[in-house]
Amino acid sequence: MDFDCLFNAQLDTLKEEGNYRIFAELERKCGAFPKAKSHDEDCPDEVTVWCSNDYLGMGQHPKVIQSMQNAVAENGCGAGGTRNISGTNHQHKLLEAELADLHGKESALLFTSGYVSNWAALSTLGSRLPDAVILSDELNHASMIEGIRHSRANKVIWKHNDPEDLDRKLAALPSNATKIVAFESVYSMDGDICPMKEIVEVAEKHGAMTYLDEVHAVGMYGPRGGGVSEREGLADRITLIEGTLGKAFGVMGGYITGSEAMCDFVRSFASGFIFTTALPPAVAAAARTSIRHLKESRVERDAQKAQVAHLRKRLNDYGIPHLENPSHIIPVMIKDPVKCRMLADILMQDYGIYVQPINYPTVPKGTERLRFTPGPLHTDADIEHLVQALATLWKQCAIAHQVA
Amino acid sequence: MDFDCLFNAQLDTLKEEGNYRIFAELERKCGAFPKAKSHDEDCPDEVTVWCSNDYLGMGQHPKVIQSMQNAVAENGCGAGGTRNISGTNHQHKLLEAELADLHGKESALLFTSGYVSNWAALSTLGSRLPDAVILSDELNHASMIEGIRHSRANKVIWKHNDPEDLDRKLAALPSNATKIVAFESVYSMDGDICPMKEIVEVAEKHGAMTYLDEVHAVGMYGPRGGGVSEREGLADRITLIEGTLGKAFGVMGGYITGSEAMCDFVRSFASGFIFTTALPPAVAAAARTSIRHLKESRVERDAQKAQVAHLRKRLNDYGIPHLENPSHIIPVMIKDPVKCRMLADILMQDYGIYVQPINYPTVPKGTERLRFTPGPLHTDADIEHLVQALATLWKQCAIAHQVA
Ligand SMILES: Cc1ncc(COP(=O)(O)O)c(C=O)c1O
Ligand SMILES: Cc1ncc(COP(=O)(O)O)c(C=O)c1O
Repeated sequence: MDFDCLFNAQLDTLKEEGNYRIFAELERKCGAFPKAKSHDEDCPDEVTVWCSNDYLGMGQHPKVIQSMQNAVAENGCGAGGTRNISGTNHQHKLLEAELADLHGKESALLFTSGYVSNWAALSTLGSRLPDAVILSDELNHASMIEGIRHSRANKVIWKHNDPEDLDRKLAALPSNATKIVAFESVYSMDGDICPMKEIVEVAEKHGAMTYLDEVHAVGMYGPRGGGVSEREGLADRITLIEGTLGKAFGVMGGYITGSEAMCDFVRSFASGFIFTTALPPAVAAAARTSIRHLKESRVERDAQKAQVAHLRKRLNDYGIPHLENPSHIIPVMIKDPVKCRMLADILMQDYGIYVQPINYPTVPKGTERLRFTPGPLHTDADIEHLVQALATLWKQCAIAHQVA
Repeated sequence: MDFDCLFNAQLDTLKEEGNYRIFAELERKCGAFPKAKSHDEDCPDEVTVWCSNDYLGMGQHPKVIQSMQNAVAENGCGAGGTRNISGTNHQHKLLEAELADLHGKESALLFTSGYVSNWAALSTLGSRLPDAVILSDELNHASMIEGIRHSRANKVIWKHNDPEDLDRKLAALPSNATKIVAFESVYSMDGDICPMKEIVEVAEKHGAMTYLDEVHAVGMYGPRGGGVSEREGLADRITLIEGTLGKAFGVMGGYITGSEAMCDFVRSFASGFIFTTALPPAVAAAARTSIRHLKESRVERDAQKAQVAHLRKRLNDYGIPHLENPSHIIPVMIKDPVKCRMLADILMQDYGIYVQPINYPTVPKGTERLRFTPGPLHTDADIEHLVQALATLWKQCAIAHQVA
């Protein structure tokens, strides 16, 4: 039987829409970041990465590298099993304690990724708590949406970052429902930050749990990198804080933190936690070193903020429209998948600037964009090169100069 | 609000049933495997691990260690992004080519784990193929079950390893349905192996796709470690072969292999593939080294088979009942969660033998067991120590000596 025709039919539609994805093949060079070697034809050998989620360059920090290598030498490569069946390593326990401390919580639970932590925690809470209703911000990440969907709990969508809408929707629920308010601190595609205090107050008023995704904020915000909830002094009022080890911390993995009973509950019932090989001890060790470093050091965060402000200013100088927001993410709206890809291709091929076009399904159709994430290791010269390239293209392509 | 009472109520039930899980905290020592340091009170400092899924000890193979360390030095710790947004590294592409070659397929696609590969691939196929019906072996792994559930496709359960039942169930389906037969080669809890040829023939007869989980077989069976499908010469008749990098290959990660169109389809539509940070390049490099080694070397497989046979024989000599099966997994049935935990505790505390009690939900209630996985690095003395300990306990605890 030829099944390929079934697959190709749907791939063809993607291609026609301009939504077919082509991945850039990079070779990260330790010490050279944000430069990387490109393995794609038609591209310069060396490119500058402008869309990494290794926001602070911790993936190549000497201490983190050293810690990963040492742990490989000491503990070997893999965990050797699921957490239950021979896979719980001392490094996992140390990391969980570090994460609980980071967010000032009783306990933490590690997952293989931030995606799995959201999916597994939300599907377990939603399916096992009595009469659960999950109130989900309309722009929540795919991993949360899939977790909620998988739980088959009742779901209520509230307007993005709108505590009043949340208030109304909570008020309309029966009093016996277990209400879970799920939201993010930094929304990674627009770079906006939620009104956390207002959301928490509304949730408290209605006796609802709060489930906060700090994936794009941990390591980045708050005096110790505890995220926006730390910066705002709200961490202790939030029931569950979820994060990743794969973005600002520069490695891989995900986690939840909260009360001991809650973490134990998810540990005991979540399929996505139970039935999978644990993170390699060396990955856990490297992540812990990164977290510890960013608890003490502000150098990386400060340098990053400076470069974010600098790029914003230079974009404004040249009239290149970008979304204003209070975070480290700079989206330049293109609003067309084909143009977005074309601009990214020219930037890559002619200028050695790598920025992935962000198309559907990552963002809604019609809101395609280039999304820049300046880091502490981007030099002023890197920024200048980027801004000059964009300015040239903006002229050539006659893209509207209004703020999107 | 105190939500802990909600969590504790369900945890208490687990505890009453004897199904509350306590993880052993180990510290793997590179070079010492299957010995590990224990971090638990009441346990000897050093224990022998008898339940690892690092079946061949590849997690501490010098070549694999070296390759992981080198890649950390060269590429740093993390991938820095999702596969689409700056996370595709040269190491991922090399590994995907290696995996396609391992199974003689056109293409392969990497995931963060075997769990995610099953969940994401099955939910994508089931939800996107027209009129999909997934025919699932009744003992399929949680990751497949959750993927099927998530897809909301029609699901038909067929009797475990029973091609005739599958035949009847396929025959009953409407002809326009896209039929997907999902099954495993080695079932990890009973250690039985599916009648693959018969299943494939039945599927072909009805024009159904075949989806095969070789998680417990890759690296272990077949002349190049391509799994049972390689050993039986059936790989090219199977539509999709799924595997893990976290068991016999000793590292972490998961994958699917199949036609280029199919892999591209899953790559393009699977939420669990798209919206998550890619595997660290060093994890991919180490896994590739492990696969390449096991493609050429039979030493590990041969030594493992010898130790599996040796342990089986010694168990028989002492009349200790264990499930007969044609694989490397030796389940000793206890059939009671409390006894199972108690035996495991005594083995650990008094004998330094670590074997995790396997209870619900990993196996059905009433089929609790100890599950031994002898490897090439278990010595004859290790086996003797284990058998003597079991023989003593069997006498003391007066557990029935009949084959379960
Ligand atoms: C908001 C949000 N949550 C969760 C995730 C998943 O985290 P991870 O990459 O660790 O799987 C991501 C992105 O990948 C994200 O953007
Ligand atoms: C049959 C089967 N499939 C898939 C998995 C998941 O693989 P991984 O551990 O890589 O997530 C497992 C065990 O963990 C398994 O036993």
